[in-house]
Amino acid sequence: MTVAPPPTGTPTLLVLDADPLPRLGRLTGRAKIEHTDEPGLAKRLPHADVLLVWDFTSHAVREAWPGGGPRPRWVHTASAGMDHLLCPELVASDTVVTNARGIFDQPIAEYVAALVLAMAKDLPRTWELQRERAWRHRESRKVAGTRACVVGSGPIGRAIARTLKVLDITTALVGRTPRTGVHGPDDLDRLLSRADWVIAAAPLTEQTQGMFDARRFGVMQPSARFVNVGRGQLVVEDALAEALAKRWIAGAALDVFTDEPLPADSPLWQAPGLIVSPHMSGDTVGWRDELGAQFVELYERWEAGRPLPNVVDKKRGYVPGH
Amino acid sequence: MTVAPPPTGTPTLLVLDADPLPRLGRLTGRAKIEHTDEPGLAKRLPHADVLLVWDFTSHAVREAWPGGGPRPRWVHTASAGMDHLLCPELVASDTVVTNARGIFDQPIAEYVAALVLAMAKDLPRTWELQRERAWRHRESRKVAGTRACVVGSGPIGRAIARTLKVLDITTALVGRTPRTGVHGPDDLDRLLSRADWVIAAAPLTEQTQGMFDARRFGVMQPSARFVNVGRGQLVVEDALAEALAKRWIAGAALDVFTDEPLPADSPLWQAPGLIVSPHMSGDTVGWRDELGAQFVELYERWEAGRPLPNVVDKKRGYVPGH
Repeated sequence: MTVAPPPTGTPTLLVLDADPLPRLGRLTGRAKIEHTDEPGLAKRLPHADVLLVWDFTSHAVREAWPGGGPRPRWVHTASAGMDHLLCPELVASDTVVTNARGIFDQPIAEYVAALVLAMAKDLPRTWELQRERAWRHRESRKVAGTRACVVGSGPIGRAIARTLKVLDITTALVGRTPRTGVHGPDDLDRLLSRADWVIAAAPLTEQTQGMFDARRFGVMQPSARFVNVGRGQLVVEDALAEALAKRWIAGAALDVFTDEPLPADSPLWQAPGLIVSPHMSGDTVGWRDELGAQFVELYERWEAGRPLPNVVDKKRGYVPGH
Repeated sequence: MTVAPPPTGTPTLLVLDADPLPRLGRLTGRAKIEHTDEPGLAKRLPHADVLLVWDFTSHAVREAWPGGGPRPRWVHTASAGMDHLLCPELVASDTVVTNARGIFDQPIAEYVAALVLAMAKDLPRTWELQRERAWRHRESRKVAGTRACVVGSGPIGRAIARTLKVLDITTALVGRTPRTGVHGPDDLDRLLSRADWVIAAAPLTEQTQGMFDARRFGVMQPSARFVNVGRGQLVVEDALAEALAKRWIAGAALDVFTDEPLPADSPLWQAPGLIVSPHMSGDTVGWRDELGAQFVELYERWEAGRPLPNVVDKKRGYVPGH
């Protein structure tokens, strides 16, 4: 999709910051770069040609956008998910939204493989026993020949499926629309009932919110393990805690939560068989530089009047795939 | 290699037991199955046609073998390693020794992948922080594009290399004899100096004993991580502990130790950056059944006068590979 750059003058690039700042050195002199924190966003929004949402944990855009006055024609978020950004007014506007599609695929796929293998090989128990200086041999599980169901057929879900497949795990991919190599929602319960590994990697949308609820954990096998690297709100967290306590499923790993950071008094920290990690699955050394470089590349396309990739379907809440 | 079965009568199969017993049901009536513990072994050895060393943690064969009288013509061990078994008298004898080649390849390869990914994704620290209910985001490492050096070019080492390669880790294999796809010992130090991951999966022989010593840990990169799934004696354990304490290398995981079980007062339990597991890398659910079935298959070949596979080169201490 092409978004026309302003006809004359230096464009204003507004950056909703996080610490550390993005590296946009190549844009010096080619854009008026203004930085803003959350409280300053609403005031600066009308003057911006482009908004870079570098602080992808912030919900400030959703709150500031609905005000009056002009709005940037292009918004880029340094994240794969769009849920922190999209408000009805932005969806209805003709502003184009792009995301960081691609940066997180391989890191998250590896992270999921790490969790799956760690659970199969009982590594959490190994660490516990090491603390106690206890030598206790156990049998572990082979992952080759097991079955996985990956929910979410975007680039992250597809990268996860590829990685699990090379480990000889029979892997089914589930998306919103059935197509070659992708099952539709109608197949989900049947696939869940057979899976050894259920991986949630879907975007947060009206359709996916709370999709992993008590009923779905009930459908899974008692030996199944559940992993969420999508968004916390895909999961009814109380239902998962109960499913683990009642041994409806054998274990789980959550990298994302409805409330982040996970509050210190959350019962999830100590739910039996649950691995808690702090939303880090996609964040490998150098990731911020990659995110910055990706935005610079998109900016240069925009400057040159060329079409932008990674354009989000704002109604669906993600970049439509292949 | 063919080992002649006794010309007449039911052969005597002596089993050096561990708990649980092997499942040899199909051999009932076709072999006189005698069970022995360690103290009884020396007395029974002269009457046995075949010895099955089911308790592969025992060193009793090495001690009982040198005595006088006839010896079984065939010894099978339910393990990949031979170091618990081979004494000079057995090596010099014409007794054929076979091992459990093949059973452990895939499980150990997966276990190594689990450790490599767990270290890359900082999972041990994640577990520690979870105990403290502490949300602390960290950047982790991508494994794709890193380099591994796998020492040991038998079926286990080759399975490890295959698995690391499918994770897009550039992997070099080092064996005793250079050949296509396998580096010789002359290349070892150069490969160690570049590796992000060093995996020890060699048999314990005179050549490999203590090969990972202070000098070799000194050659490795400060960011390197070391994994031993071969035999404890491949590693000079004090040197490894020192290399970790001095940050010569970034981390390590040991599944095997010079003394097993690892004594509760060993400093290794708390060495910084060291993962300790209780010699379990190859032992996936059903492994004992697979070991039993493999022996029954070999027994039936022997009974029929057909050649035995998995024959160990007793001088070298392993089954020569391809």
